Amino acid sequence: MRDVSIIGIGQTPVAEHWDRSLRHLAGDAVLAAMKDAGIETADALYVGNMLSGLLTGQEHLGALIADFVGLRGIEAVKVEAACGSGAAALRLGYMAVAGGMHDLVIVCGVEKMTDTVNSETTTGLVMAADADYESVHGLTFVAINALLMRRYMYEYGVRHEDFAYFTVNAHRNAAGNPQAMYRNPVTVEQFMRARMIADPINLLDSSGIGDGAAAVVLCPTSMAREYGHGRRVRIRASSMATDAVAVHDRRDPLWLSAVEASAFKAYQQAGVGPREIDLFELHDAFTIMAALSLEASGFAERGKGVWLARSGEISREGRIPICTMGGLKARGHPVGATGLYQVVEVVQQLRGEAGPNQIAHARLGMAQNIGGSGATAITHILEAQD
Amino acid sequence: MRDVSIIGIGQTPVAEHWDRSLRHLAGDAVLAAMKDAGIETADALYVGNMLSGLLTGQEHLGALIADFVGLRGIEAVKVEAACGSGAAALRLGYMAVAGGMHDLVIVCGVEKMTDTVNSETTTGLVMAADADYESVHGLTFVAINALLMRRYMYEYGVRHEDFAYFTVNAHRNAAGNPQAMYRNPVTVEQFMRARMIADPINLLDSSGIGDGAAAVVLCPTSMAREYGHGRRVRIRASSMATDAVAVHDRRDPLWLSAVEASAFKAYQQAGVGPREIDLFELHDAFTIMAALSLEASGFAERGKGVWLARSGEISREGRIPICTMGGLKARGHPVGATGLYQVVEVVQQLRGEAGPNQIAHARLGMAQNIGGSGATAITHILEAQD
Repeated sequence: MRDVSIIGIGQTPVAEHWDRSLRHLAGDAVLAAMKDAGIETADALYVGNMLSGLLTGQEHLGALIADFVGLRGIEAVKVEAACGSGAAALRLGYMAVAGGMHDLVIVCGVEKMTDTVNSETTTGLVMAADADYESVHGLTFVAINALLMRRYMYEYGVRHEDFAYFTVNAHRNAAGNPQAMYRNPVTVEQFMRARMIADPINLLDSSGIGDGAAAVVLCPTSMAREYGHGRRVRIRASSMATDAVAVHDRRDPLWLSAVEASAFKAYQQAGVGPREIDLFELHDAFTIMAALSLEASGFAERGKGVWLARSGEISREGRIPICTMGGLKARGHPVGATGLYQVVEVVQQLRGEAGPNQIAHARLGMAQNIGGSGATAITHILEAQD
Repeated sequence: MRDVSIIGIGQTPVAEHWDRSLRHLAGDAVLAAMKDAGIETADALYVGNMLSGLLTGQEHLGALIADFVGLRGIEAVKVEAACGSGAAALRLGYMAVAGGMHDLVIVCGVEKMTDTVNSETTTGLVMAADADYESVHGLTFVAINALLMRRYMYEYGVRHEDFAYFTVNAHRNAAGNPQAMYRNPVTVEQFMRARMIADPINLLDSSGIGDGAAAVVLCPTSMAREYGHGRRVRIRASSMATDAVAVHDRRDPLWLSAVEASAFKAYQQAGVGPREIDLFELHDAFTIMAALSLEASGFAERGKGVWLARSGEISREGRIPICTMGGLKARGHPVGATGLYQVVEVVQQLRGEAGPNQIAHARLGMAQNIGGSGATAITHILEAQD
């Protein structure tokens, strides 16, 4: 199989884009990525999206977006894996290029969650959970995460306040990211005063939904020099794993098996371990997910994820910087687009384009996108390319 | 890239399965395909589905179905391309095996359209069209096809009765398929008396929606002998193309450019032409789509698709048998599953397992799945393998 490089990136701000429809957002990101890569055509388009059908009455996004960006006729398809849809689309785009099916591939993640016509976002998000055994009982998606968080606090003797440091870090980093939704700094005191959403998850434990799109252009590493500006990033690993969708079906609700499997397969493929990773864009849909992701990915012992945050090791100056551009919490979480935002941000870091948020000497970055409360996990490891 | 074979097939009857949920239907088809292939595990699962979110409140089908069939942990993702979702999933499964990413891949198409809780099927199906420029004006999916059919009749001087022969053929063939939904024969007289749905499309111009799932198991051709019973079928070509989603955006509404592009790319890949194809499972969601597909795929001149049907050349004894197990019209059209049903049926023909519907000496079969009113087209050419 061929090595694959990312030769272009594009993103819209995450915001309430009341003046931009889903196709406009996707178009903005894709055209920016194509411009960045210096290409005017492509062989295929893979679109990550979760909620367009329910919220905007539009499926069939592959053909729709391909046509809208001026690529009518090319192979184009939508990929869905709940909140992991974006990275799942990247995984398929990677496969298309690595396997030799296509040379120039665009991958886009897009979600339009505000100012929609058909339904409510809460109804949409719970489709990531098990409809027959979870949602049917009235559980919302945040409620499922609240159960996990409560159990974590009970099992490991952790207080709610201990989670605050994920939020403080995310908001600090978002301040330096012009695309981020919440650029205001947050203190531990503010975190503790935030209003409760689903006990113990409060407003500042929760990522904000939003509208947005992000995109990358892929090609074989051997051809990457022909395109763009020379700031290329190589995909050193790409892996996906799954778990039971319903939390009660898992052996251990506090251990994200799919995250572990996908992270360690990625380490193996790249020939590295957690110690070599310079930054980690993880899936902090809720603070509890950040803690569990750090543990299952090998950055903290079981039950110790929160302490990594509290000790400052997740900051830009720490041992393993996470959410370096704000993360889901503060950049915003347009669900089907998030996986691509994470990858775009890792590329910004590896190209030295992260502005005030630049991680010094970043060479290896990891992006991990999760579907549901851990049933799908997709991990990519990217490397700065000379 | 590697040659790819289909080593196992499975399907449920298409019906109103009020006692089977979406995961049960998918499970039945996948487990049948695994049994047929003689495998107990797989590397990845690709699920074609269009409507599960809107109709049953369940997304995230990759992880859900992988777990349900006993394959918890494997790579699994949902693929959506409107009514072309099934074949789009096959296309990605093919890519995974051909490119060397995986050796054993399961592809499943599933749709649960009756006895659902959340919404109406008509609302769901129109998500294949352009929400901002077609559905917003109140156009349903059948209405869009009715506009195409009316224009066809006007341009080519064709009467409504001339389309009857597609329906007569489909129902004749469904009679011999135990999995088909409508096994009753239909006469031209009955067709003409059927009640109007969206003028000029009547009930018997229209495929019936239903619940169902179909699945195949793929592996590299070089490994195919290790598995199953030796009745293998090789994928000689796989191709996907797109067009504008909104009909008014196309250069010529009566010419399916995506169908043409995907069919002729497939012919090129397989090194054959329409004359060498022994049977053609086409996308007869409405009779007009059957006519347009025959024309764009090179089996009939422009405006002459209906005459191919009227002259009997589409029958099992004719020049190009279509819908040999009932087609969308009479086998039934569980939209996201249809592309896989078509492929399973071609495999049945090529393995000599089509019972009373067996096409004599069938060696090369083509399956073509369409998304929307032609915006996505996926063509596969399969060959009996010694």
